[in-house]
Amino acid sequence: MRRGLTGFIVPHADEYQNEYVPACAERLAWLTGFTGSAGTAIVLAGQAAIFVDGRYTLQVRSQVDLQAWTPRHLMDEPVHSWLPAVLRRGDKLGYDPWLHTPQEVKQLKEACAKAGAVLTPCEPNPVDAIWDDRPAPPSAKVVPHDLAYAGKSSEDKRHELSMTLKNEEIEVAVLTAPDSIAWLLNVRGGDVEHTPLPLGFALLHRDATASLFLDTHKVSDSLTSHLGPAVRIRPVSEFHEALEQLGRMGDRVLCDPNRTASWITERLTRSGARVIEGEDPCLLPKACKNVVEINGAREAQKRDGAAVCEFLAWLSHEAPKGKLSELDAQEYLDACRCRQPFWQDMSFPTISAAGPNGAVVHYRASDKQCRRLEPGALYLVDSGGQYLDGTTDITRTIAVGSPTPECRDRYTRVLKGHIALARATFPRGTTGAQLDALARRPLWEVELDYAHGTGHGVGSYLGVHEGPQRIAKGGHTVALQPGMILSNEPGYYKDGEYGIRLENLIVVIPAAADNGDGREWFAFETITLVPFDASLIDGSLLNAAEREWLNDYHARVRAVIGPLVDSSTAVWLERATKRIF
Amino acid sequence: MRRGLTGFIVPHADEYQNEYVPACAERLAWLTGFTGSAGTAIVLAGQAAIFVDGRYTLQVRSQVDLQAWTPRHLMDEPVHSWLPAVLRRGDKLGYDPWLHTPQEVKQLKEACAKAGAVLTPCEPNPVDAIWDDRPAPPSAKVVPHDLAYAGKSSEDKRHELSMTLKNEEIEVAVLTAPDSIAWLLNVRGGDVEHTPLPLGFALLHRDATASLFLDTHKVSDSLTSHLGPAVRIRPVSEFHEALEQLGRMGDRVLCDPNRTASWITERLTRSGARVIEGEDPCLLPKACKNVVEINGAREAQKRDGAAVCEFLAWLSHEAPKGKLSELDAQEYLDACRCRQPFWQDMSFPTISAAGPNGAVVHYRASDKQCRRLEPGALYLVDSGGQYLDGTTDITRTIAVGSPTPECRDRYTRVLKGHIALARATFPRGTTGAQLDALARRPLWEVELDYAHGTGHGVGSYLGVHEGPQRIAKGGHTVALQPGMILSNEPGYYKDGEYGIRLENLIVVIPAAADNGDGREWFAFETITLVPFDASLIDGSLLNAAEREWLNDYHARVRAVIGPLVDSSTAVWLERATKRIF
Repeated sequence: MRRGLTGFIVPHADEYQNEYVPACAERLAWLTGFTGSAGTAIVLAGQAAIFVDGRYTLQVRSQVDLQAWTPRHLMDEPVHSWLPAVLRRGDKLGYDPWLHTPQEVKQLKEACAKAGAVLTPCEPNPVDAIWDDRPAPPSAKVVPHDLAYAGKSSEDKRHELSMTLKNEEIEVAVLTAPDSIAWLLNVRGGDVEHTPLPLGFALLHRDATASLFLDTHKVSDSLTSHLGPAVRIRPVSEFHEALEQLGRMGDRVLCDPNRTASWITERLTRSGARVIEGEDPCLLPKACKNVVEINGAREAQKRDGAAVCEFLAWLSHEAPKGKLSELDAQEYLDACRCRQPFWQDMSFPTISAAGPNGAVVHYRASDKQCRRLEPGALYLVDSGGQYLDGTTDITRTIAVGSPTPECRDRYTRVLKGHIALARATFPRGTTGAQLDALARRPLWEVELDYAHGTGHGVGSYLGVHEGPQRIAKGGHTVALQPGMILSNEPGYYKDGEYGIRLENLIVVIPAAADNGDGREWFAFETITLVPFDASLIDGSLLNAAEREWLNDYHARVRAVIGPLVDSSTAVWLERATKRIF
Repeated sequence: MRRGLTGFIVPHADEYQNEYVPACAERLAWLTGFTGSAGTAIVLAGQAAIFVDGRYTLQVRSQVDLQAWTPRHLMDEPVHSWLPAVLRRGDKLGYDPWLHTPQEVKQLKEACAKAGAVLTPCEPNPVDAIWDDRPAPPSAKVVPHDLAYAGKSSEDKRHELSMTLKNEEIEVAVLTAPDSIAWLLNVRGGDVEHTPLPLGFALLHRDATASLFLDTHKVSDSLTSHLGPAVRIRPVSEFHEALEQLGRMGDRVLCDPNRTASWITERLTRSGARVIEGEDPCLLPKACKNVVEINGAREAQKRDGAAVCEFLAWLSHEAPKGKLSELDAQEYLDACRCRQPFWQDMSFPTISAAGPNGAVVHYRASDKQCRRLEPGALYLVDSGGQYLDGTTDITRTIAVGSPTPECRDRYTRVLKGHIALARATFPRGTTGAQLDALARRPLWEVELDYAHGTGHGVGSYLGVHEGPQRIAKGGHTVALQPGMILSNEPGYYKDGEYGIRLENLIVVIPAAADNGDGREWFAFETITLVPFDASLIDGSLLNAAEREWLNDYHARVRAVIGPLVDSSTAVWLERATKRIF
């Protein structure tokens, strides 16, 4: 290998440390064939490994050449635990400092040191040197995001954050997370698929002004006036110089060690800046949606619910005929959705998975792999939309024909977990890690589980995956706060047979009653409005409270969605939301 | 203040960083009057604060002079968060390096630095200089702990740990946790109340030999032969020199940064040793009890259950007369317990709390404060025994006369939480933090909670509080493993009115069935055997599974404890364990 390297690490990442990367940054997919949204490949002299999480353990085996690559589990055996066992003394492991955060670099360095090996920055990325047909970087126009959807002006947001900077005696915050920049400046872009992200860099100054560095081809006419004089648009080529300028001033510069490329913090440090490690200041205010955003999300869910109900009504007639393919169903659903007002895009590629494909958690049907929806099998459909007023994400699992008793049992347990989370009341300070087991317990009781988190944050016409809040097994300590939108999506997967997932979006709200103890109590409002398949519910497994929740939910779906759909969907909806006793 | 100090910090700690401290280390109680098992006082020029956790928020107010001391919450506002706000530039805050771990010192240093103040080691402790009648250090004999109770020889334990040391290329591990030393060497002592701890220091060498440093007056005749030639007994005065010897050899020395006094790590570092930070290697193997220890715990629980049932039977006759005091009840219970074979001591001072005193989580009746058990009130009794074969800890809440509907509702919710945890099944890797909410949910549903953890680890004829496992809201990441003993003790407290707590001990065991998915599933076995007060249970709030658990548990209590008690207790037991429908 060049530069005396004995290995190189290829993460699924771009220079913005964002989950959604443009085609030109899909180095992992180009190198290995694996197209999942998270993963890391490591090429060493004698071996090559690809690390993926529980969602992708099946997919990776179907996509990569298993003679060349050994799949490994990203959580059970993190890269930095694996490296010391396989590196040899004197090895030089290369990495691209634009694709790793300082936190990751620190962990990798320590892992290399344990084996007597050295971690070495490589720039430019050696993959790019051999990637002949690498796509050009995206350059979609950046457009204003109207106050009617954003609910708070960029000026107000910048002023509020500048208070924090002043309190911490920080001159400037470096922002590289595309959704943070989009949120702060009330703009949206189109540089990656399915998420309206503008790729670029921003500096937020303590005087509440900002500098936005981007490919100037992306600047739309309306953008400059929308941003106003307090936001300077500068070509991205000036970003490096701007960092060095901060260094020369000896400024205290806030960088998120988990979200900024290590290239940036190293450049700042080398040029004399004092790098203050702290969380991206947009993260929490972006996660806690304001009233306008929450109302937007509720409205978007109504339209999205109408689209999904139209699809499910159609499916109830067509699927039993046994001729529909996964792609047929997907096309119909996508068409229902994109007819809706304010629709902009899917929020991710629709997962339309029949029978055993449902067990591939992030399955994607294609011309190469596409099953029929066969009677007696389950059909899992996970999809969502980007609307100007909100981002949606919903999963339903449908029985084609008569389901087996085992499928009904598992479905009902997943539903019980879903309801337990939907009904939860909890005090301020509670994290998603504390609530996660509520959703798993009905499966745990029969020694079953699912290998993914129970809930992820969701943006407001932004990322369908958004932090910092999560509902998952552990390792995260962010308390749930009013206005946070999350998914509630327990599941159960039987390899080679079927998959079940039931997903609604929920918003953290203050609990109805105040019991006068001076503590704040929170609850969830379910905002997704689509019936659950009653033919898969074993009513004998539900207790009174669960039945009541389900009947109330179905009554609400009927009342809200009924007036929005055509007459044949309305007939279906009436049947699908009948009381369960 | 002396030495130019502008403040001093007084933790509830001794040089062994152990929860249970001897009288000579009760500096916090001597200084403030607060006698709880955890807390920290800080004296500054203008103010003095005492930090305690949720268990002690009421107690601290009744014990300290509130004109001199401001009580603060140890968790909501940790010392290191509070200090930067109150220290002034140039302040010198003193600490005793024997009473703080390196981890604590690091946090305190950073907190001082934020305010421009300096943290300064002070030796000897300035409190000792003014504490005229300070008790002498304890010097109870150290005695062998028989293999019949320990289940594994010290030699085997030392050989197993020495493998770990070899793998990590460590020469020696410094052990200062008294229960780690007791466990490793299969010895017990009597240097603190209620827990058979030998206070001293130990070094475990990679060749599986050990050195035990202690006051040689503590050495009993049988000890030397019990320990054998591979364990060298040395006077404690040689410990400092032994550390410096390690330093001169440049050894890699393992110290637990959360359990070793910073005095020790600083001495090691200064004398040239390479301090490797890592967890006390005894911690996890001590927590995962072997078969002999688990069987011992089960046997101890039978005798302890018989003692508590005798007490409750007596109480059911005596309490309604309205004349019993908390101390009367406590004396009777303690007498029942200490009659049991293998009994050595109480595992902590019995909490005998009537009516509103039940809301003081760690209440202790005394001549000064002692209520009567009055009809219509609740009575909470939390107690335990040290038996040669196991340590017990049980809480029951009893209605004297007829309970109010509110008390029955709250009691039943606490019981539902207790049962939810007792019935839990969970996969390997699950932590107590994930399970905690199961026990809280029935209270959370009506916006109630309790301000303490749900479960603590319990030792084997050792500490009634033992780590590293816990069941609590968060911040701990130790997975539950087979053999771990924990308490299951949800509660509910209404200040000034009543307290409810229901505590059994549970052991992590493999779940009954193997579902063939290659994962390991765990469950809890409840080993405490005493009925719950049926007059406080609102059966309409229990679901079928909860009723079944309760009836099965009561049937087991009757079958196991019945044959062990006198006839009048047996009559009571028969009634107390009747089926609930």
